[in-house]
Amino acid sequence: MSVTRLKNYVNGQWVDPPNAGTLDIENPSSGEIVARVPLSTAEAVSQAVDAAHAAFPAWSNTPVARRCEHLFKLVGLMQDHFEEISRGVTEEMGKSLPDARAEVKRALENVEVACGMPTLQQGDKLIGAAADIDGEVLRVPVGVFGMIAPFNFPAMVPFWFMPYALATGNTYVLKPSEIVPCSQQRIAALIHEAGFPPGVFNLVNGDKVVGETLLANEKVAGISSVGATATARAITEACAKHGKRCQAFGGAKNYLVVMPDAKTDQVVRNMLTSCYGCAGQRCMAASAIACVGDETYQTVVKEFLAASKEVIVADPLDPAVANESMVMGPVISAAAKSRILGLIDTGVKEGATLALDGRDIRVPGREKGHFIGPTVFTDVKPGMTVERTEIFGPVVVITKCDSFDHAISVINSHQYGNGASIYTQNGYYARRFKLEAQYGMIGINIGIPAPVACLPFGGMKASVYADIKAQSKAIIDFFTQKKIVTERYWAEEA
Amino acid sequence: MSVTRLKNYVNGQWVDPPNAGTLDIENPSSGEIVARVPLSTAEAVSQAVDAAHAAFPAWSNTPVARRCEHLFKLVGLMQDHFEEISRGVTEEMGKSLPDARAEVKRALENVEVACGMPTLQQGDKLIGAAADIDGEVLRVPVGVFGMIAPFNFPAMVPFWFMPYALATGNTYVLKPSEIVPCSQQRIAALIHEAGFPPGVFNLVNGDKVVGETLLANEKVAGISSVGATATARAITEACAKHGKRCQAFGGAKNYLVVMPDAKTDQVVRNMLTSCYGCAGQRCMAASAIACVGDETYQTVVKEFLAASKEVIVADPLDPAVANESMVMGPVISAAAKSRILGLIDTGVKEGATLALDGRDIRVPGREKGHFIGPTVFTDVKPGMTVERTEIFGPVVVITKCDSFDHAISVINSHQYGNGASIYTQNGYYARRFKLEAQYGMIGINIGIPAPVACLPFGGMKASVYADIKAQSKAIIDFFTQKKIVTERYWAEEA
Amino acid sequence: MSVTRLKNYVNGQWVDPPNAGTLDIENPSSGEIVARVPLSTAEAVSQAVDAAHAAFPAWSNTPVARRCEHLFKLVGLMQDHFEEISRGVTEEMGKSLPDARAEVKRALENVEVACGMPTLQQGDKLIGAAADIDGEVLRVPVGVFGMIAPFNFPAMVPFWFMPYALATGNTYVLKPSEIVPCSQQRIAALIHEAGFPPGVFNLVNGDKVVGETLLANEKVAGISSVGATATARAITEACAKHGKRCQAFGGAKNYLVVMPDAKTDQVVRNMLTSCYGCAGQRCMAASAIACVGDETYQTVVKEFLAASKEVIVADPLDPAVANESMVMGPVISAAAKSRILGLIDTGVKEGATLALDGRDIRVPGREKGHFIGPTVFTDVKPGMTVERTEIFGPVVVITKCDSFDHAISVINSHQYGNGASIYTQNGYYARRFKLEAQYGMIGINIGIPAPVACLPFGGMKASVYADIKAQSKAIIDFFTQKKIVTERYWAEEA
Amino acid sequence: MSVTRLKNYVNGQWVDPPNAGTLDIENPSSGEIVARVPLSTAEAVSQAVDAAHAAFPAWSNTPVARRCEHLFKLVGLMQDHFEEISRGVTEEMGKSLPDARAEVKRALENVEVACGMPTLQQGDKLIGAAADIDGEVLRVPVGVFGMIAPFNFPAMVPFWFMPYALATGNTYVLKPSEIVPCSQQRIAALIHEAGFPPGVFNLVNGDKVVGETLLANEKVAGISSVGATATARAITEACAKHGKRCQAFGGAKNYLVVMPDAKTDQVVRNMLTSCYGCAGQRCMAASAIACVGDETYQTVVKEFLAASKEVIVADPLDPAVANESMVMGPVISAAAKSRILGLIDTGVKEGATLALDGRDIRVPGREKGHFIGPTVFTDVKPGMTVERTEIFGPVVVITKCDSFDHAISVINSHQYGNGASIYTQNGYYARRFKLEAQYGMIGINIGIPAPVACLPFGGMKASVYADIKAQSKAIIDFFTQKKIVTERYWAEEA
Repeated sequence: MSVTRLKNYVNGQWVDPPNAGTLDIENPSSGEIVARVPLSTAEAVSQAVDAAHAAFPAWSNTPVARRCEHLFKLVGLMQDHFEEISRGVTEEMGKSLPDARAEVKRALENVEVACGMPTLQQGDKLIGAAADIDGEVLRVPVGVFGMIAPFNFPAMVPFWFMPYALATGNTYVLKPSEIVPCSQQRIAALIHEAGFPPGVFNLVNGDKVVGETLLANEKVAGISSVGATATARAITEACAKHGKRCQAFGGAKNYLVVMPDAKTDQVVRNMLTSCYGCAGQRCMAASAIACVGDETYQTVVKEFLAASKEVIVADPLDPAVANESMVMGPVISAAAKSRILGLIDTGVKEGATLALDGRDIRVPGREKGHFIGPTVFTDVKPGMTVERTEIFGPVVVITKCDSFDHAISVINSHQYGNGASIYTQNGYYARRFKLEAQYGMIGINIGIPAPVACLPFGGMKASVYADIKAQSKAIIDFFTQKKIVTERYWAEEA
Repeated sequence: MSVTRLKNYVNGQWVDPPNAGTLDIENPSSGEIVARVPLSTAEAVSQAVDAAHAAFPAWSNTPVARRCEHLFKLVGLMQDHFEEISRGVTEEMGKSLPDARAEVKRALENVEVACGMPTLQQGDKLIGAAADIDGEVLRVPVGVFGMIAPFNFPAMVPFWFMPYALATGNTYVLKPSEIVPCSQQRIAALIHEAGFPPGVFNLVNGDKVVGETLLANEKVAGISSVGATATARAITEACAKHGKRCQAFGGAKNYLVVMPDAKTDQVVRNMLTSCYGCAGQRCMAASAIACVGDETYQTVVKEFLAASKEVIVADPLDPAVANESMVMGPVISAAAKSRILGLIDTGVKEGATLALDGRDIRVPGREKGHFIGPTVFTDVKPGMTVERTEIFGPVVVITKCDSFDHAISVINSHQYGNGASIYTQNGYYARRFKLEAQYGMIGINIGIPAPVACLPFGGMKASVYADIKAQSKAIIDFFTQKKIVTERYWAEEA
Repeated sequence: MSVTRLKNYVNGQWVDPPNAGTLDIENPSSGEIVARVPLSTAEAVSQAVDAAHAAFPAWSNTPVARRCEHLFKLVGLMQDHFEEISRGVTEEMGKSLPDARAEVKRALENVEVACGMPTLQQGDKLIGAAADIDGEVLRVPVGVFGMIAPFNFPAMVPFWFMPYALATGNTYVLKPSEIVPCSQQRIAALIHEAGFPPGVFNLVNGDKVVGETLLANEKVAGISSVGATATARAITEACAKHGKRCQAFGGAKNYLVVMPDAKTDQVVRNMLTSCYGCAGQRCMAASAIACVGDETYQTVVKEFLAASKEVIVADPLDPAVANESMVMGPVISAAAKSRILGLIDTGVKEGATLALDGRDIRVPGREKGHFIGPTVFTDVKPGMTVERTEIFGPVVVITKCDSFDHAISVINSHQYGNGASIYTQNGYYARRFKLEAQYGMIGINIGIPAPVACLPFGGMKASVYADIKAQSKAIIDFFTQKKIVTERYWAEEA
Repeated sequence: MSVTRLKNYVNGQWVDPPNAGTLDIENPSSGEIVARVPLSTAEAVSQAVDAAHAAFPAWSNTPVARRCEHLFKLVGLMQDHFEEISRGVTEEMGKSLPDARAEVKRALENVEVACGMPTLQQGDKLIGAAADIDGEVLRVPVGVFGMIAPFNFPAMVPFWFMPYALATGNTYVLKPSEIVPCSQQRIAALIHEAGFPPGVFNLVNGDKVVGETLLANEKVAGISSVGATATARAITEACAKHGKRCQAFGGAKNYLVVMPDAKTDQVVRNMLTSCYGCAGQRCMAASAIACVGDETYQTVVKEFLAASKEVIVADPLDPAVANESMVMGPVISAAAKSRILGLIDTGVKEGATLALDGRDIRVPGREKGHFIGPTVFTDVKPGMTVERTEIFGPVVVITKCDSFDHAISVINSHQYGNGASIYTQNGYYARRFKLEAQYGMIGINIGIPAPVACLPFGGMKASVYADIKAQSKAIIDFFTQKKIVTERYWAEEA
């Protein structure tokens, strides 16, 4: 079978970028090559930016309700192709089908929220700023925006940004992760079908040449990115240098704090989904558990280990697991697996107890897949490498804390501040956790405290380099320029 | 007469910063030394930051309505001392008393707007983010903020930021311009009297050592600054490097466009105030006039020149000019005067017509004052140095344009995008100007299109390095962190 | 050909209301009977209310984003059936196809705006209402709402209200006008297809028995209605008596004011659409023109008369007029025609000049249609019956005013305050008109100043009995109850 | 000592209304006459309305920030006179000084919130409602508003409305309760001092003639009232009849639900303040306690009775009780006392256990005061008169419920829906209580769930006849008219 070669989508057309090398796209469960992605040159990127720049004047002057008609159409198209896109995500990224569906659903929900732009983009009108003088705040689009996407949510992450950019009247250049470019290829076909004018949305495949070109191109007004913290920092500095707006989302190490009054049964099931979903490769995945009190610790360790052993590690597209409730697929690549195994070794060396070891898992018939089984460290001390580092794999560390205050101090001593959750029925601890945990996204009895699409998304500290968060009405400020008008007319005869 | 040596205000107390050199503060009208300002060392700055950092937890947990009680008190105190502060501004900066009063009034109005924080800082509550799950957006304060102030509005500019920072629960370190530090000294005494807890507000005098220390100090969460574009750019890059929030406002070249239907009498008076107020040293001052059509040009030139000649150049505190309607004081310093005179020479060399020459003005009895008279260039071509450069003095250039479209293209070809105004009674041109002029602040028949305090303040392009504007509810996003909560409790017995 | 008998839609099913008489539905262009509508008894109405009441608990607890999924689906379905619904509107009501399409488009746009409810229905969260105490504002649905619809917009008017009621979590009983019940019959089938749970939306056909039963039923939380002012007033009093929320929209007499500087060509075309669209049976139709100055008056009279004569009066479904730009159909019924002809006679008797007489128009082959041709009175004085009364037909009165002030005083002396527009390019008059015209909906060079769906809809004075307007985010306050929570937990051990 | 005769404040002046009878104002603690209040005739009321009507055009056109300057001044004046006003409240109404201070503080806070109007009254601006067409929503003032005040909060209740009415640009006629008119007399002097233009605020003393005249006067655009439910209903119907906006707040019976996990010590102290503050004459006072489970019931009964016995019943101005923490004064009048004693008798007859009997209390030296001691009924069954009726005195009923669900059904079976609180640390019950209790104001561990001034105030069901609540930004919709503008200019030459 011949392997599809992906294309770029520029100025309303599918194009083969000239002079581009290619990269093979692998199904991480089977090791099969499922596509080849072109690595666009700087020149190809610039052409896409030029197309977006040329499309901006007309698009930004299109009434916002007319712009959103295309998004309403996209909602329908994504619903029609929901299962197809979801399976594609699983194929190229390896997450379970339920996880893939949840991802595509969230992408869709962001389009739905952006459909509200005719209401949300309205500015302000002040009659009587002074005698016979009025004031206005217009929220106008800015220009061309770019997005540099990560591998872990091939379909969803661009949708934290892009629907809002388009709805507000900007034009867009999206660079998918070169490891998982197929989902956006599918989605771009739907965007095309939704009838946006040429140049409004553009898709450019490639590696870091694409990102660097976007960052340096003076026609690009702003960049959104999701990736490692070091990358986020570099993108932030590049944007400052080039006078661009910037949202750079970085790494995370998300804690779950268990209080003595927590309902253990529900808690363990909830934690399981968070820790092993997407094989631990979610930026909102929990990978550390802090138990308050020895009894809580003993109970949680026992039950979490038992439950972890029940997780089915498999190719998520294997029909044999279609009806299983908790399936975990592979990590994204051989390189990722190797890095994770190295970190597990480090944990052992540092003295943590490897209570469940997923290193040697075998998935029959999928010997080329990059599988790691559920792995749990107990007796973990704050400060150990496995406790500090974002492992981005199915590796969970469990620590014991003396008190609520102790747990807060442990989780706040991290450089990251993405997500954190507490398990308790007690409103007092819940409130203190909301206020004291230095994390941008807080869960109360929620394993994955990723906000729904109509609320903002974003962390704190080293997890985010942005004054403005993603998703929801919050991001409109990123994609619009406030123009303030002071207006008066001198008296005519009456 | 002994000259006052200014102090810092740190942790609720007036202190002499150790090991500080001093700088003489001159009345630019008379050349007299009116005060001496200490130049704080990095260590002194750090102590102020430490005080602010220590005050943050208690202040940020104080209910917002309690925080605002101090601001309501400050409103009363600033009203009581209104004239005193205004005269102080005139004394150290040289602007006319009406201009000084307008400045202090705007400072006061920003405190008033910040008093609305109990309403404005409210977050969102979503019942039913999912079944039995709710969402919340908390808008919590961030930490210590710093401000680096310019010389041209000694009282006002810090108030675009500081009242909002305090109201939202942050703590503050203010660095006034070392050329005009006296006004904030006076105001800090009122802030003290308003009863803010020690460390919530701090004043640190000094030169760029103060700014650099604030930028590098990791306890500082964000910086606001107003200054030249090059400085703004450097501050932006430093903030990106140090992971800080940043608002850096830069330079400007603000145009007034006159349409043929404009009401010439009102227009000329309106332009005069804009061009010569503060001796042209406002970031919102107009310094360029574009006339559409030859007839418009001829009329405006004639009338504007006639009116310019009537401007009274004087020491604004001279009782003899107390009742004059249009008094212009000196520029800020000998250095500034010298720079401006050099630019006038350049204009002559480049071929512009020096229709009114203010270089040789003499103000009797104020021979040490840094006076420049109203200066007007006609026959100016777009691209000339005097047309491109922010002169920051009482120098006006007048150009002729063929059409509305031509005028738009001239003003949009500038690197800056702070403020621009059009004079017309025609709603069609007014609307197009609002949308097409690439300036953040737009005036319709308004000489100085600086928005009132309850609307945002900020330009575009090289005039601003910030995703979030100053003043009003807009700035709350700069001074708050959105924490997003996803909350659920598992069922108990009913 | 057998004539369809319409049904009610109650609790998710199509039902024949028991013991119901019927009314014939006529195509007003041809006089043909196109359907028969049942006249539901009070008992049938109560059953629908019961169904809505029973559906409320589950629907109100459904997460808002889930509720809106049905609305997104409805958007798609209405787009798919757009032309069919539009033709149906024309068939039963007689307006031109472009007018019918514009109507259905506006209905659709209201569904689109209501799709934004996950963002718009969010309440507020105040951390620190007092020490350790937080405040919340929850915006919860209220219960069962009813709507009493008029005949002039069979498809659209219910959509000013109903999509918002459903999106916010209320349930609904709609009573269409018994004269034009077919369009909502068609649309209800789409609502059914969109998958709302049974009882959430209910359609009850009938005459004023239905309205009276809804008003008296204590399970109905609120009523929206559109109709004559006397009806609106009666509904308001009934709602007050029964403790219901109420929005009652009444009559109108909408003026167009022409200033001397107006662009006559565009103005006349613009006025024509407003005055003769829907044969003058729009609540936002202009039916009075005030010209400022004699010259303006003479010009407008001459050109408006000439243009009025070019209007094609015809059956809008006649293929021969399919490509004509300005087609006017019949008025709704023989009774309406008779009433309008009587008012024209009155105008003649009162001394107005009948400059264009549409009374005797003949449409060949449509002798049973209720056609009236464009009719224009000139030399009209304020206070004449034709100038004071809402004629609701294609009859236009033109008056002459001395000045802008005079025109304002004429239009403000009316009891109504629905819509008014001014034609001028001058920003001064435009601003004064916005502020001084005591009309809820203001147009500047807009013949029909009906706001788009993302802005509120509603007049002033005798045109509206409601504190809260229709459409857009404004109406959410009508369909939600604010619950205010004050919350604190006492300290536990940390 | 001569007794002061109060005046009206009309059109900026203190006036004696002509032909007015008078009523003696009694200190309910001592029975002394402290003032005489005139009972204005309908003619006097109309003159005040005329003054307000005449002041409206100029005031409504005053820039909102200028209007608010007077409110800022009022904040300062009320702070300066804080203790004096508070003592006056105690003198005429009888509540304890801490209660009086809390009342005046809340009045002040409402002025503070209204000071935010320059931000809050801003309307919306939509660029691109259609091609080249913009939309605006202007929030303009409406006209003259009236307020009919109750006796229980002589200073505060008018401030739920009036500051917002003035800030938004309306003018006002306030009718204080004729039983407690002195506090508003004092405050009106401060309003005068704050410099509002004549006619903007007017105070008219009198009895129901005043209210009826306001309701019937066609120059009055809307009425706010607080009183008994029957009165609220009558006012609502009158407003509907006269086409006025209406907010009518009615009666209440507020429950406190105690869950088994509640912290009894804190709970009992908290309930005490709620039940006996203002001698139970707060519309937000709790007067019924529901305990979930027998053990909870037994504990609460025992501790609440013990604590109730410690309440000091006294003249609150008696220096001897100045430092006591829990002082309870008299009820408002002999008539009120008689009514309450009758209801206690009824409770005994119906079989409730009178566990604490306050009927025969004697306060030495205050034999003419209308004192009733803390009174507690136990073994109360839902449906008993004392459980259903708003007693408005220091009478508490305690019932036992089987479960949370049972408690919810008991409190929701009431006609009223003002305030209700639950005592629990458990987030699950707290959330369900928020959603399921059909009360407009909900407390979680809060005895008096009256929201702070920056949140809305208002109940549900028979406790409120209003679509729009009091206080905060919510009430702005009551005091403003939304005018929606659709604006376009035809192209000129460019």
